[in-house]
Amino acid sequence: MNIVIIGVGLIGGSAGLALRGFLTTIIGVGRNPEKNKRAMELGLVDKIMPYDEALKIGDLIIIAIPVDSAENLITDVLNKIKSDAVVVDMSSTKQRICEVIRNHPRRRNFVASHPIAGTEYSGPDAAIPNLFTDKVSIICEKELSSKEALAKVLEMYKILKMNVIYMNSKEHDKHIAYVSQLSHISSFVLSLTVFEIEKDEKNIFNLAGSGFASTVRLAKSSPDMWAPILEQNSEHLSKALTTYMNYLNKFKTSIEEKDKSKLHELITEANIIKKVLK
Amino acid sequence: MNIVIIGVGLIGGSAGLALRGFLTTIIGVGRNPEKNKRAMELGLVDKIMPYDEALKIGDLIIIAIPVDSAENLITDVLNKIKSDAVVVDMSSTKQRICEVIRNHPRRRNFVASHPIAGTEYSGPDAAIPNLFTDKVSIICEKELSSKEALAKVLEMYKILKMNVIYMNSKEHDKHIAYVSQLSHISSFVLSLTVFEIEKDEKNIFNLAGSGFASTVRLAKSSPDMWAPILEQNSEHLSKALTTYMNYLNKFKTSIEEKDKSKLHELITEANIIKKVLK
Repeated sequence: MNIVIIGVGLIGGSAGLALRGFLTTIIGVGRNPEKNKRAMELGLVDKIMPYDEALKIGDLIIIAIPVDSAENLITDVLNKIKSDAVVVDMSSTKQRICEVIRNHPRRRNFVASHPIAGTEYSGPDAAIPNLFTDKVSIICEKELSSKEALAKVLEMYKILKMNVIYMNSKEHDKHIAYVSQLSHISSFVLSLTVFEIEKDEKNIFNLAGSGFASTVRLAKSSPDMWAPILEQNSEHLSKALTTYMNYLNKFKTSIEEKDKSKLHELITEANIIKKVLK
Repeated sequence: MNIVIIGVGLIGGSAGLALRGFLTTIIGVGRNPEKNKRAMELGLVDKIMPYDEALKIGDLIIIAIPVDSAENLITDVLNKIKSDAVVVDMSSTKQRICEVIRNHPRRRNFVASHPIAGTEYSGPDAAIPNLFTDKVSIICEKELSSKEALAKVLEMYKILKMNVIYMNSKEHDKHIAYVSQLSHISSFVLSLTVFEIEKDEKNIFNLAGSGFASTVRLAKSSPDMWAPILEQNSEHLSKALTTYMNYLNKFKTSIEEKDKSKLHELITEANIIKKVLK
C-alpha cells in the first residue's frame, strides 16, 4: 500500500512517522526541496516523489498543507488519482473544502477530516510519533464518502490511535472556532500586547510565570498555517470574537469601577471550566 | 526561629513545606479551622496558633493571603510583632500595601515582595514543596526596609531557591498587569465565551486540543484570590486591556475583511514571543 503525504510538516510528518512500518510505503510530496530532504533525514517518509508521479501510484493520499492550499489543490488531486484511491485531508476548517468538491465526480473517494492534534511548532522538525495518540479526529459529511473510502480512513486513524467522531462541516467549523481558533487569537493578542508595553524583553523574561507561558504558548504558531484558517472561518470567528469582546468589556468595566463583587462573580462563572478539564 | 505563616493555602503552605526543617518552627495562622486542620495533616506547618499569640513569638512573619486582606491586616500585624521581628508579604500587587504602611513606625521591619510562582489551584491541598524553585521573586521599595529585615528575607528566598530582583512598587504593578494579570483575564474570558456557546460540555471535551487546555488553564484560578488582585491593579489593567482590545479589534477586522495578508502580518509579529520563551 502506497501512502502519499502531501505536506511533510508537523501534521503530515507526524502521520508519516506513525504510519511507517505497517506494510506501507510512505511517499512524501512537497514543494520545498529542503523540507523534503529534512523529512527523509528524519525518517518521516520512505521516499520523496514529484506530485504527479506520486498521485499515479498512491492508494491513500493524505493532504496535510495549509487550508487555503488544500482548498486550491483538492480538485486537481481527485482528478489525478487512481480510480480506487482514497483521499483524506487533515486541515482545520471543513466547510470550504467540502463545498469545493461537493459535485466532483470522485467526491466519494474523499474523506474530510480534522485530527485535533498539534503543537505550536511547524515544519518537518516539529513532527513527533505520538502527536495523534489518544486524541479525537472529526470526520465531516461521512455520507458523501464511499464505504470503502471511509473504512480505509478509519483504519488509518486506528493506527494513529485516534478516537473518531462525526459532524457536519458547518457544525465543525462553528464549534472549532470557539474551542480552538479563539484560543490562538487570544494568545496572539496577548503576545502583541505584552510586547507593545515591554520594550525590554528582560522584563518579560523575569516577570513571566508559568501562567503567562501557558497562556501565550500558541502565539508561537505558524502564520502560514494560521492566517488561512482564520480567514476561512471568518463568519463563525466573527461571532465568537463578538462574544469574547462582550465578556472582555465586562471585565474592563468591573475593573475600572473597582467592582470586586462583580469580578468575583465573573471569575466564579469562568471556573466552570474545571468541570470539563481536570 | 519561629516562622509565622498567615494564610496556609497554595502560597503559604508551599512556603511552609519548603522552610520546614531549617532549625525553624513553622506556625500556621488562619481563620478557617478546616483549612488549618488540613495544613497540619499535610505537614505544611509544625503547629497552628491563634493570630495574636503567634505574632507575640514570631521572628519572621509571612503574609500569604488575598491582596485585599493583606492590605487590611498589615498595620495590625506591624503593631503586634516583637520589635525585631520581620514581616514579609507575598501578595501579587505591591502599590497599595506599600502606601498603607509607608508611614508606619515599624515600616523598616517590613519587606514587600512578590514571588512569581503559583498554579491555578488554591488552598492547603494545592501546596507543593518546589513551587518556588528556580523562579523569580520581586522585592519592592527595598530602601524602606532595614538591612536586617532585608537580609532575613533574602535568606528565606535563598532557601526557597528563588532569584530576587528589585523594583519600585509602581513599576512592579504596571509590568505585572501585562505579564501576569492580563493572562488570567484572557483565560477567564475564553472560558466564559466557550461556555456561552457550548451548552453541551461534551463538545468542549471532544474538541478541546492541548492548545485550548493550555490557554484556558488559568480560568480555574480562585476568585477569592483574583478578584482583589484585579481590583487593586485597576489603573494599570485598564490600560493593558485597552491595548489588548485594540489588537483584538485588528484581528476581528482582518478576519471579517478576509484579509489574509494582514492576518499573516499580525501573527508573524506575535511570533516574537519565541525570542523570549523557548
